[in-house]
Amino acid sequence: MFETAELGRKLSKEAYEAQVPGLRTDLLAAQRKLTQAPFPVIILINGVEGAGKSELLNLLNEWLDARFIQTNAFGPPTEEQQHRPKYWRYWMATAPRGKIGMYLGNWYYAPIVERVQGKIDDDEFRADLADVKSFEQTLADDGTLFIKIWLHISRKEQKHRFKTWGSDPKTKWRVSRLEKKHTKRYSEFRAVSEHAIRETSTGDCPWVVVEATDERYRDITVAAHVLKRIRERLDAIQTRPPPEAEKPIDDPKTILDSLDLEKQLSKDEYKKKLEAGQSTLSRLERRAHKRQVGSLVLFEGWDAAGKGGCIRRMLHGLDIRHAQVIPIAAPTDEERAHHYLWRFWRHLPRLGRMTIYDRSWYGRVLVERVEGFATPAEWRRAYNEINDFEGQLVDHGIVLVKFWLHLSQKEQLRRFKEREKIPWKKHKITEEDYRNREKANQYEKAANEMIERTSTDYAPWTLIEAENKQYARIKVIETLNDRLKAALPKK
Amino acid sequence: MFETAELGRKLSKEAYEAQVPGLRTDLLAAQRKLTQAPFPVIILINGVEGAGKSELLNLLNEWLDARFIQTNAFGPPTEEQQHRPKYWRYWMATAPRGKIGMYLGNWYYAPIVERVQGKIDDDEFRADLADVKSFEQTLADDGTLFIKIWLHISRKEQKHRFKTWGSDPKTKWRVSRLEKKHTKRYSEFRAVSEHAIRETSTGDCPWVVVEATDERYRDITVAAHVLKRIRERLDAIQTRPPPEAEKPIDDPKTILDSLDLEKQLSKDEYKKKLEAGQSTLSRLERRAHKRQVGSLVLFEGWDAAGKGGCIRRMLHGLDIRHAQVIPIAAPTDEERAHHYLWRFWRHLPRLGRMTIYDRSWYGRVLVERVEGFATPAEWRRAYNEINDFEGQLVDHGIVLVKFWLHLSQKEQLRRFKEREKIPWKKHKITEEDYRNREKANQYEKAANEMIERTSTDYAPWTLIEAENKQYARIKVIETLNDRLKAALPKK
Repeated sequence: MFETAELGRKLSKEAYEAQVPGLRTDLLAAQRKLTQAPFPVIILINGVEGAGKSELLNLLNEWLDARFIQTNAFGPPTEEQQHRPKYWRYWMATAPRGKIGMYLGNWYYAPIVERVQGKIDDDEFRADLADVKSFEQTLADDGTLFIKIWLHISRKEQKHRFKTWGSDPKTKWRVSRLEKKHTKRYSEFRAVSEHAIRETSTGDCPWVVVEATDERYRDITVAAHVLKRIRERLDAIQTRPPPEAEKPIDDPKTILDSLDLEKQLSKDEYKKKLEAGQSTLSRLERRAHKRQVGSLVLFEGWDAAGKGGCIRRMLHGLDIRHAQVIPIAAPTDEERAHHYLWRFWRHLPRLGRMTIYDRSWYGRVLVERVEGFATPAEWRRAYNEINDFEGQLVDHGIVLVKFWLHLSQKEQLRRFKEREKIPWKKHKITEEDYRNREKANQYEKAANEMIERTSTDYAPWTLIEAENKQYARIKVIETLNDRLKAALPKK
Repeated sequence: MFETAELGRKLSKEAYEAQVPGLRTDLLAAQRKLTQAPFPVIILINGVEGAGKSELLNLLNEWLDARFIQTNAFGPPTEEQQHRPKYWRYWMATAPRGKIGMYLGNWYYAPIVERVQGKIDDDEFRADLADVKSFEQTLADDGTLFIKIWLHISRKEQKHRFKTWGSDPKTKWRVSRLEKKHTKRYSEFRAVSEHAIRETSTGDCPWVVVEATDERYRDITVAAHVLKRIRERLDAIQTRPPPEAEKPIDDPKTILDSLDLEKQLSKDEYKKKLEAGQSTLSRLERRAHKRQVGSLVLFEGWDAAGKGGCIRRMLHGLDIRHAQVIPIAAPTDEERAHHYLWRFWRHLPRLGRMTIYDRSWYGRVLVERVEGFATPAEWRRAYNEINDFEGQLVDHGIVLVKFWLHLSQKEQLRRFKEREKIPWKKHKITEEDYRNREKANQYEKAANEMIERTSTDYAPWTLIEAENKQYARIKVIETLNDRLKAALPKK
């Protein structure tokens, strides 16, 4: 693969100077159009040590309008970053629509270096690359334009550069001990990098390998490539057809029908179990905090199913200093400018804390599906995106508990009417709630498919019979306690 | 002061239970109104160890709608926080309009504990309290409603509680070593706290001391106080009169008139000085990064004065991995929901990095003043707010460099016309630019007052004669280099 990047391509000073003004003008014009476009650009700059990654980054910042570029260089993770799953810092750094993000020392760095150093074996390396691919594909599916640039120089050229730089006091700083170490392992790096490039060059996110021996050739080639890719994408944008709303369907038989909604608790039993459950929760929460185990509890379910009531009873057993309730409402404009999962990544707590979501990322496959806010392609691929997201949380040691609160349509109507009579609950019921009832079948079908597709062994759904509020609250707290207990065995 | 909180106030179970339902209903109703109101609420919960701060926090979360509450408990600063000025984490935690933020272990914690332990002397303590007051006043001026609650119990009661808790395995965890230590110093704590409360009880941000011996009395008293304060403020909101735009004035004589706009550089001189300046900048930037010294460079000035050109020349000498350009455009909706300085706090970089602002927080006293987006009261107090903000940056070791780029109205017009002829610069000139020219006098007056009020010894303005672009660029780079050199003496 790299042989074709060792052909000695060069560009004369005259040829270079003849091309620069036009190229810069065109780049700026394309970037200006991009600021109004509904997608971001991610430019990865990777390659051999000494090939000029920083120089290239600086050059692009100079030739383009730096005000609409976000530059990200990653070093070892900070403490704040170590408290979150591995990809958190990369998600946080994804550029919003209309902007260009440039990434140095990105998600390819650790897998390649660790493989070369033998810290991970080939299977682990391939698993890491699978994570990389999945991350990139998720963003690409959402419209992100990936421009992945690999700068190559030969072993001989690398040696030569390090020697030249090392002997000049002005450039000596560029040859760090780390870089010298890399030279010694040039061929291992080459082999591992080739593997990485091959595995991760997908249709949506291809690599381009650029011969970087001659700086002028390198700069013009990369800049022209960036321009070409951005222009192509700008030309390809069409107003996409409005997504279709789900069609009404005949009453489907779903997993929710199998729930026994007759289940209930007497007042005495409820009181006893609630107190015991809250006290256990309180103990477990302290243990979790002490051991730095985080947890994430999310609630989905029908309107008026009693999510808020469950959450209030849970809070009673929690130290609110270590717990947080996040209500999911309409996204802010910053959130809308990113992938829909970004806002959930954004609020991931530090370790040792509990986060309670009142509605969640599942909105994508529920309300957005039924109301037609997401295209069928979008909500269909969301199942995998969500499974992947949750997998990363669980891998990071987070206890993930998902509740679906179910009640009958009849009971829901009764609660709506009841709420309308209580002055301080009245505002909770709007016209929209009644409109949603008409789509109950579609919502039920969507919920059924959601449970089927996203109840994984690492993050299963717990279905809660919520026809009786007391029964539901106890089942929620006891389920949560069981899950925490399993994750926090007594020492 | 605390004597009045040792009177043995109590509430019977019956009286408590009679009041709770009404109080909760009223609290929820007030909170619902608050979600639509243009101000946030900050509730501080402080007080004697063992008085029940956490319990109260939990209770308020249960009685109010936890979805619109942000709870913040601060421990020792994390690594990420240590990289920013002391108040960064408090600024980041300020609640947005319409929400309630609750704060435990807040900005009062460190000053009080450190004074009790003798780590700071009385002068330092008072300086810390002055910082506290200034922080709170800045937010209060912007509309934040402060509810500051101090829970008090007597020394005897504290001893009694720790003993009771310590002997019960279920509550033993509550009595940590730290808390025991606090008991020994009860009277020092009492004296220091009294001082803190006295100094920081201002008209806008008063403390209320609550006798916390009887839990029922404590809970009802605090909840009723919170309700009363929120209601009062909701009632007091009036649609404020639209701020007045600055009146046109006669040509004022300003400091800007004293600049010699004839200054220029020959092409040869420029080239030589630019190369030398960039090379020095590059060296200094590396040194700053190595020593973890951050810097912040901001540009203000007339349209078309050449800010972008200066920034591009600076970038050429910088390692873009350690530098970032932040263009200030319209705030996002999240930013609009906070104090106007919040978005600038938000982007403060970690140490060892350079941030370049293309326009800045000075918009408050320039465009917002002239166009009438800010009330006279708002922009007038902004001078102090900004000086205070910059003082905190400088105290944190950040090198702060502020440039005002000045050119004549005639030269500006020439550049507008010139830009209109260049295809990829054309978009930069809009109707608005011409409209702004009509207000040149008002802008000049605002700029003059800004320079006068905010050129401090720790963060002086540098006025740049920008009639000649080459001269301006060199003066910018050389000024920056001088400032960096002074901050980074050779070892």
